[in-house]
Amino acid sequence: MVINMAAGASEAELQHVIERVIECGFQPHVTRGAERAIVAAVGSGGSRSALEALKAAPGVEDVVPIAHPFKLVSRQTRTERTRVTVGSAVIGGDEAVVIAGPCSVESREQILETAAAVKAAGATLLRGGAYKPRTSPYDFQGLGCQALKLLQEARETTGLPVVTEVMSTQDIDLISEHADMLQVGARNMQNYDLLRQLARCGKPVLLKRGPSATVKEWLLAAEYLLAGGNPNVVLCERGIKTFETETRNTLDLAAVALARELSHLPVIADPSHGTGRRDLIAPASRAALAIGADGLIIEVHPCPERAMSDGAQSLDLKEFARLMQDLSAPIRAVASFSNQKFPVQPERLNGSSVYSV
Amino acid sequence: MVINMAAGASEAELQHVIERVIECGFQPHVTRGAERAIVAAVGSGGSRSALEALKAAPGVEDVVPIAHPFKLVSRQTRTERTRVTVGSAVIGGDEAVVIAGPCSVESREQILETAAAVKAAGATLLRGGAYKPRTSPYDFQGLGCQALKLLQEARETTGLPVVTEVMSTQDIDLISEHADMLQVGARNMQNYDLLRQLARCGKPVLLKRGPSATVKEWLLAAEYLLAGGNPNVVLCERGIKTFETETRNTLDLAAVALARELSHLPVIADPSHGTGRRDLIAPASRAALAIGADGLIIEVHPCPERAMSDGAQSLDLKEFARLMQDLSAPIRAVASFSNQKFPVQPERLNGSSVYSV
Amino acid sequence: MVINMAAGASEAELQHVIERVIECGFQPHVTRGAERAIVAAVGSGGSRSALEALKAAPGVEDVVPIAHPFKLVSRQTRTERTRVTVGSAVIGGDEAVVIAGPCSVESREQILETAAAVKAAGATLLRGGAYKPRTSPYDFQGLGCQALKLLQEARETTGLPVVTEVMSTQDIDLISEHADMLQVGARNMQNYDLLRQLARCGKPVLLKRGPSATVKEWLLAAEYLLAGGNPNVVLCERGIKTFETETRNTLDLAAVALARELSHLPVIADPSHGTGRRDLIAPASRAALAIGADGLIIEVHPCPERAMSDGAQSLDLKEFARLMQDLSAPIRAVASFSNQKFPVQPERLNGSSVYSV
Amino acid sequence: MVINMAAGASEAELQHVIERVIECGFQPHVTRGAERAIVAAVGSGGSRSALEALKAAPGVEDVVPIAHPFKLVSRQTRTERTRVTVGSAVIGGDEAVVIAGPCSVESREQILETAAAVKAAGATLLRGGAYKPRTSPYDFQGLGCQALKLLQEARETTGLPVVTEVMSTQDIDLISEHADMLQVGARNMQNYDLLRQLARCGKPVLLKRGPSATVKEWLLAAEYLLAGGNPNVVLCERGIKTFETETRNTLDLAAVALARELSHLPVIADPSHGTGRRDLIAPASRAALAIGADGLIIEVHPCPERAMSDGAQSLDLKEFARLMQDLSAPIRAVASFSNQKFPVQPERLNGSSVYSV
Repeated sequence: MVINMAAGASEAELQHVIERVIECGFQPHVTRGAERAIVAAVGSGGSRSALEALKAAPGVEDVVPIAHPFKLVSRQTRTERTRVTVGSAVIGGDEAVVIAGPCSVESREQILETAAAVKAAGATLLRGGAYKPRTSPYDFQGLGCQALKLLQEARETTGLPVVTEVMSTQDIDLISEHADMLQVGARNMQNYDLLRQLARCGKPVLLKRGPSATVKEWLLAAEYLLAGGNPNVVLCERGIKTFETETRNTLDLAAVALARELSHLPVIADPSHGTGRRDLIAPASRAALAIGADGLIIEVHPCPERAMSDGAQSLDLKEFARLMQDLSAPIRAVASFSNQKFPVQPERLNGSSVYSV
Repeated sequence: MVINMAAGASEAELQHVIERVIECGFQPHVTRGAERAIVAAVGSGGSRSALEALKAAPGVEDVVPIAHPFKLVSRQTRTERTRVTVGSAVIGGDEAVVIAGPCSVESREQILETAAAVKAAGATLLRGGAYKPRTSPYDFQGLGCQALKLLQEARETTGLPVVTEVMSTQDIDLISEHADMLQVGARNMQNYDLLRQLARCGKPVLLKRGPSATVKEWLLAAEYLLAGGNPNVVLCERGIKTFETETRNTLDLAAVALARELSHLPVIADPSHGTGRRDLIAPASRAALAIGADGLIIEVHPCPERAMSDGAQSLDLKEFARLMQDLSAPIRAVASFSNQKFPVQPERLNGSSVYSV
Repeated sequence: MVINMAAGASEAELQHVIERVIECGFQPHVTRGAERAIVAAVGSGGSRSALEALKAAPGVEDVVPIAHPFKLVSRQTRTERTRVTVGSAVIGGDEAVVIAGPCSVESREQILETAAAVKAAGATLLRGGAYKPRTSPYDFQGLGCQALKLLQEARETTGLPVVTEVMSTQDIDLISEHADMLQVGARNMQNYDLLRQLARCGKPVLLKRGPSATVKEWLLAAEYLLAGGNPNVVLCERGIKTFETETRNTLDLAAVALARELSHLPVIADPSHGTGRRDLIAPASRAALAIGADGLIIEVHPCPERAMSDGAQSLDLKEFARLMQDLSAPIRAVASFSNQKFPVQPERLNGSSVYSV
Repeated sequence: MVINMAAGASEAELQHVIERVIECGFQPHVTRGAERAIVAAVGSGGSRSALEALKAAPGVEDVVPIAHPFKLVSRQTRTERTRVTVGSAVIGGDEAVVIAGPCSVESREQILETAAAVKAAGATLLRGGAYKPRTSPYDFQGLGCQALKLLQEARETTGLPVVTEVMSTQDIDLISEHADMLQVGARNMQNYDLLRQLARCGKPVLLKRGPSATVKEWLLAAEYLLAGGNPNVVLCERGIKTFETETRNTLDLAAVALARELSHLPVIADPSHGTGRRDLIAPASRAALAIGADGLIIEVHPCPERAMSDGAQSLDLKEFARLMQDLSAPIRAVASFSNQKFPVQPERLNGSSVYSV
């Protein structure tokens, strides 16, 4: 942390800050500038929050963090990329995964037909909502337990591992019995009670980025899972809220690359929610793989215009098959993108690289 | 709902939409324009979600809602303003309320000293966090049950009703025993599991607006509470996420006026989180009352620079007392702002009001 | 500036940064932390841009500015508040000003009727667009020179000084002849060519905040005007672009207070563009004055439903008269808000104010 | 346009709207719903702006546009994709173009060395700033006319056509003499005076998307150019302003696909400004081509850490060469992405495609 003193701060105020930095468990290093002083708090044993409160001390203008606040999710902690195994699928490995299926499980026919079709088209995992977070209480809220059983049947039929959303800590046990991976929805990314309990559930977790979460906040949400004992976390970029209204969200693909640079966890992208428009799913899927995503999650429905949720952003079975054909090369090629080092850091210094005009 | 057909949609596509509108329980009214047709779906008995899925039908460009999606929270349903009674306090009445206290309960001394001071200064309710939603798992997470007991002691000493945040459905019963009003934090605004259970808890709820929630999404979150059986809901604007970084959030004060126009529920403002800067709390408080807020929630700490959370946006005891003195006139005057009709609607039509240049 | 070295930066990389800091005209102060080093660049004579480019140097993670980048607009440069005189009006003085009039000048009758009515209601200046920036090339673009003559006639009739927007450097001379104050629209806030020439025009300038400009960028745009020789600048907050769609923009009222804290320039608010809804203009106007705005700019039209632009956010003549009556007390009271010191800074340090639990 | 009457609107108010719709040159089609009426204004001869003002009429809740507001840029007007020829380069053709060069022209050595290097690496056009829009008046503002001469020399040496930004209408003639394509910067996207004069300049224009412009506003800015007589317009997505601070902007790659779907104009992407981080330029470039961009514009500097502007987001010469090698396959492949029809529209209706569960 660096504490910036205000331009007119007094010597007593500076001394007070220095004392507080020591009390908080850090060593203070003072730099006196032309207009103001800054105090760097050095050391790793102290309390960051305590230092942050110094913003409220007299004569202090700002307190600026230097180090990243996350630890276990950081590539500084673990340089090797994490691979998350979900049933027969590996996320973060040499091939990109494709998770496909309907927004909601609506009926036995619907989920079995979809599961068979996405399996045939090459999908690696099956998605399907049993408990649905809906903006309006009057919208379809999911079939719940019945949907879980149908998903299990679809898994048995197709062999596809199943991913489904968990909205309530009370459902964790039940869902864990029926599904292979538990999804934390975007609206629950900072539902810390849910995160804490998922950290102990023993199942891989798919953690969606919140619609107004920065990449750092997203990684800190993942840190809750790792710190709580669950290393099997996959991050999912699904679009953020911006002023643009032509698309449902703004798919922040650079965040996929950035999250992979800051963290060792696999990162996938959701072009369905990210754009909200079926006409943009295919191009956005190609772009996501090109930027290094470890996979995609795509909404597919036998008849989107009759879907009970998210019809406007669901592909039908034929369209999905066509997309998979289109993506087959990039899916296999993803490892080459993901693992290449280019251009991660400016080249290390040597005499010749310095500009000498 | 109005369904806009694409410019080149065929007659068969239009007929298909008409049939679906009927199947969904509405009457279709078709208008054929120069370039395209639109289909208005008329009636109140059908399913909105089913209609929305028509975005995915061939030849359809967009499906546009006409009516607001909320019912019980709407002023169309209930024209009289709701008053929420919390212990000795009434929110939504003739005087603005001020809820004050520390971000977190940190110790017996801290909460008792603060409670006594805010009571003396004129606050109407006491706030204090027992369970804290923190971005990082390594930050102070609150004293939990111990804090609830301290809050209860503070209530007994001062007579101030207590508001505290609930993060987990499992804590609802315990918190309900100790507190007078349960707060849903901004990050949990769309935690529907929590909302559904709070709808049945019998306590008033303070519902903070999510950092990326539109006013409509916020009102629909409140609709979950009312539809579930809890009419005692107070809305709280606490700032939204924008590109501006000088303030922690952007306090959307117009949303306070808008929410009061669309809904009969009381609306308060949180200038502490809304600005994140103690220097802006006083002016933002004045503005919130001037725009018609039914009250304020303000963070106060005996020594903000040592606060375990939110020190940078907490007033100390003297500053709070000074603010209350400053606000005393607007607090009493708020009813006159809130209840005045000006200018709600353009005046009803009569011959003379039409422009005749 | 503080240069944060990356966690694994080498000693050679650190030395290279130290050398570059010296070459850029600053003294380097190095602090070596547990994980990384930071280099503070001290001094006022060097080049900030040159230092910023060090972000691209090997081993550097970030370059963080400490001091504000603006000078002449800063309250550190000039502690006394600036008063801008525009004809008979003073902006930034003891009373709040109200600038009122139509979005566009549409006809002689329209502007003369409006001018007379807003004068009678108590407005201090007249607004009216002659050259209109319109999102679509097919929308009404203003009456141009003819409108300027009509504005001049309205000024002669009413005595109200005239404010009108300038979109082109080529129009500066002509508009300067006819108007008392030149407005830079939100879309042109960073049109530096226009700013540079307005700096030399000798007329007061009303500088609207851009829809995606931070407060710092806005103040730096004003810095162009002051640095170019024009001290008569009034800032105008008119709403920023966010995800909220119920209002046209999000009126950032805290930015009014913040700009007044950081700068000595007067700051007014535009509730018409800031909300885009006539039903919110009155409450937003009250709030703007309560937060310390030095004035308001409000769109008024004899018949909003026939306005050639911005009808939805224009008050009619009666509504404006009613608003002015409603605002008369706050308009006179604004000086007391604006000049009060509360709570600007945490109180200066003394023994007793430190928390001693 | 569809005019939504308020729930309680009177019959007189509805009649008034009907009359106004006719006066505005449209035929009104009324649909009476359970709660409210809507009036569709049919026809193409009337005035959209006049209809929009009806938002201010008594009893009207909202006025909702149905048709897109742009004409000449629309794919409905011209189905064939536009190819823009700039010297020896074709933008919008079978191969993606790469425009490369420094943010600012700083010296003869710098621009000639860069031009030779980017040419050797495979770039198609040269960029370089002569007139720089800078947030602070104290930052380097470009070498102006001298830079134009250096760019011309670089063109003569390398054969690369030159793109440079124009900030002022007064510079259009001079820049047109020296450069092959004129760039409108993001901050000037809605500088309509500039757009109108560039419409008449006879040179191709590169139109950057404004940091808070929706895709529709961007296309309407292009419409100014086409409506004014200049069909040679290339759109450039360069990132929008959001709450995310880890990247300079949020590169909205879906907007590239969307703009290509709505318009026949070529669309390129700027990963340098779009991310602001050199480590993200390569992955973002790959993604931009994968989503269908017709090209890239990339900042390159012989020594980024000494660049006078944008060093943090500039590649050095070796890094750029490496990027070009990495991109060579996608650059040639872009046509196949861009021209493929998948999945543009849900398949046209026939019996078998309807869901029959």
